[in-house]
Amino acid sequence: MQCEIIAIGTELLLGQIQDTNSSWLGENLALIGVDNYYQSKIGDNEERIVDALKLALSRSDAIICCGGLGPTQDDITREAIAKATDSKLILNEKVAEKIEYMFSSRGRHMTQNNLKQAMIPKGGIAIEDQPGTAPGILFPFKNKVIYAVPGVPYELKQIMRSTILPDLKKRSGSTTIIKSRTLRTWGHTESKLAELLEPKIEQLNESQNTTLAFLASGIEGLKLRITVKGETEEEIAQQLDNEEKHIRSIIGDVVFGVNSETIEQRILKNLQDKNLTLSAVEIATDGLASTRLGKVDSLGKYFKGCIIPKSQLSKHQLLQHTQKESDFSETKRLADAVRNFFDSDIGLAITYSEKEGVNYLAISSNNILIEEAMKLPGDGVRVSQFSVITALNLLRVQIENNLV
Amino acid sequence: MQCEIIAIGTELLLGQIQDTNSSWLGENLALIGVDNYYQSKIGDNEERIVDALKLALSRSDAIICCGGLGPTQDDITREAIAKATDSKLILNEKVAEKIEYMFSSRGRHMTQNNLKQAMIPKGGIAIEDQPGTAPGILFPFKNKVIYAVPGVPYELKQIMRSTILPDLKKRSGSTTIIKSRTLRTWGHTESKLAELLEPKIEQLNESQNTTLAFLASGIEGLKLRITVKGETEEEIAQQLDNEEKHIRSIIGDVVFGVNSETIEQRILKNLQDKNLTLSAVEIATDGLASTRLGKVDSLGKYFKGCIIPKSQLSKHQLLQHTQKESDFSETKRLADAVRNFFDSDIGLAITYSEKEGVNYLAISSNNILIEEAMKLPGDGVRVSQFSVITALNLLRVQIENNLV
Repeated sequence: MQCEIIAIGTELLLGQIQDTNSSWLGENLALIGVDNYYQSKIGDNEERIVDALKLALSRSDAIICCGGLGPTQDDITREAIAKATDSKLILNEKVAEKIEYMFSSRGRHMTQNNLKQAMIPKGGIAIEDQPGTAPGILFPFKNKVIYAVPGVPYELKQIMRSTILPDLKKRSGSTTIIKSRTLRTWGHTESKLAELLEPKIEQLNESQNTTLAFLASGIEGLKLRITVKGETEEEIAQQLDNEEKHIRSIIGDVVFGVNSETIEQRILKNLQDKNLTLSAVEIATDGLASTRLGKVDSLGKYFKGCIIPKSQLSKHQLLQHTQKESDFSETKRLADAVRNFFDSDIGLAITYSEKEGVNYLAISSNNILIEEAMKLPGDGVRVSQFSVITALNLLRVQIENNLV
Repeated sequence: MQCEIIAIGTELLLGQIQDTNSSWLGENLALIGVDNYYQSKIGDNEERIVDALKLALSRSDAIICCGGLGPTQDDITREAIAKATDSKLILNEKVAEKIEYMFSSRGRHMTQNNLKQAMIPKGGIAIEDQPGTAPGILFPFKNKVIYAVPGVPYELKQIMRSTILPDLKKRSGSTTIIKSRTLRTWGHTESKLAELLEPKIEQLNESQNTTLAFLASGIEGLKLRITVKGETEEEIAQQLDNEEKHIRSIIGDVVFGVNSETIEQRILKNLQDKNLTLSAVEIATDGLASTRLGKVDSLGKYFKGCIIPKSQLSKHQLLQHTQKESDFSETKRLADAVRNFFDSDIGLAITYSEKEGVNYLAISSNNILIEEAMKLPGDGVRVSQFSVITALNLLRVQIENNLV
């Protein structure tokens, strides 16, 4: 089964809004085993939308139209679907009532154009399970199906999850279940990981029901996605567990998170597990690590805070909080000083050596005072972001191995 | 003239990489007065790329293909262009030499597949002015033109700017020059700006050569883009100056930047102009403002640093640096304390009132000690980002009006 995506809106062509929906849809179609060969963007022009729909009907089994379902004049997706399929639009009374109620309950006057959103092609169904006013559309046409969803990402995702992805899966006639698990790694390059995993990938190629994909994700590290096809949830969960275990044994201690887990979530979990507190001094990274840590610990229960001393004076003020003499490096002394300033168990420092053009990290605790130079690729912003994940990952390894 | 965009790569359809190129291209085509009605994404499948090219040749005057120019087996854009146009691919000796030299000069062995990148359709030109190995292609075909550019954004942008945009402009036969100027604002909602500018927009609609567009840009504020068409650079520059002046007089002191200028760049410029230094305490925003300020002042000449005191103890330690008694609010005292801690002219505080669920900002200097509650829409992350721009914008207004 092949499903095509048409994103509608002149603002998408003009680059005023990034079309992030199509890639989300592509990713999620793949995960239910539905092919997606075409994604297009078309402006708010009826003739061109109709042509795009006719072309899609000639080559695809299913079509998802995103956007153009609102109440204004340039929202013409409904009309274009009706025209392309030679269908009539019919007012769905239930949806019309809902829209009228949304206005009256807020004491607002409803202009007639809002009822446009209740028009559904004859034979189609309104998908109402979503947060906005405009319902989605599910319109079986001959042996194919046309869906329409709002362009607002969270409305689109809700309709896709509740109705369209299950409907597509059912239509595809496949009883196969597909599940993925993503291992987020930091520490190996893509080619190093590929080299380590080559025999594993060859083995998987023969097994047919399991695949392994590399997704380079920049500052979020390198993701390894394990995808398993099977007939029962239990069988698949077991297989994913086995593969994860095997892959971890091959690549070593570079996995910092699973699925959506970020490095900062993992650090927070580590701190909670071991009942440790952390503070940071960020010179090279200007608070980038703290923004990430602060987001997952807004009350500062485990992440006690940060100092960003940009001037010599402020660095000097901070260094008064350490007893370590100057035979320790400045980075180490800063890590120790910030730990004392915030009275935390661990102090993390990310600094910059102007002389070497390199960022340094140091970790201070009762048990350790370690330092590392970070030789990282990219320009200023990327080096900062890579420095943060490098520093947090080393911290993760230290905590998980009970070294701090 | 209408130019169509085809982005090539299975990873784009699978959502493994966001296609940001197409929207950049759409925006830049609009700015040279070339229409763009279609943008499509196609996987690494020769038949489907050939079909997409043939369709594009049937409806568009120009085509830009992005991606698929590399040396590996799934890079098949060149072959697809040759097939769709029934052309031969010919080895460009000069490009081949350049590629061979890139390998030999680094002492690396070049495998034969790398020479694929020197193959150009007969009648076409290699665009070499770019940083990677794969040249772009400019291939006039009948009365149309096909371009191919690498998918790597900075390579694509360089080739577009140096060669393709000027070539398209020339082919369009238009002598009209189109220039835009963007005013970045913070402080008015989109509907408020629209209301203030309604008479102005009506007046512009009659003038025909000037348009005004609103671009809601989230945490970067609301952009007003003035676009002027004319015959000479001087005439246009004059018109842009006039319109900017008039619009500023209508909307008041909400413009914080022009074109690519960010709020942090503007703040830094203000500090330089008045020879002032700044430091910050960020509780609600965990260093988000400091990351932005640090990026534009990496040596800390004007932005002296930041403290993020998440715990009561660290807040208490910081508050020891102010003389202000507790009849001043904590936010005001923190702004004053951080100013003293870093010995800077201005202290900025962004804090959070748990009781009210609202972020506060305070600014302390020799002349002022002011505070404001920030009632902002959105979830946690967006509220933080909006708080940063709100705080920096108020600071901008204070400095520019010589109040600090």
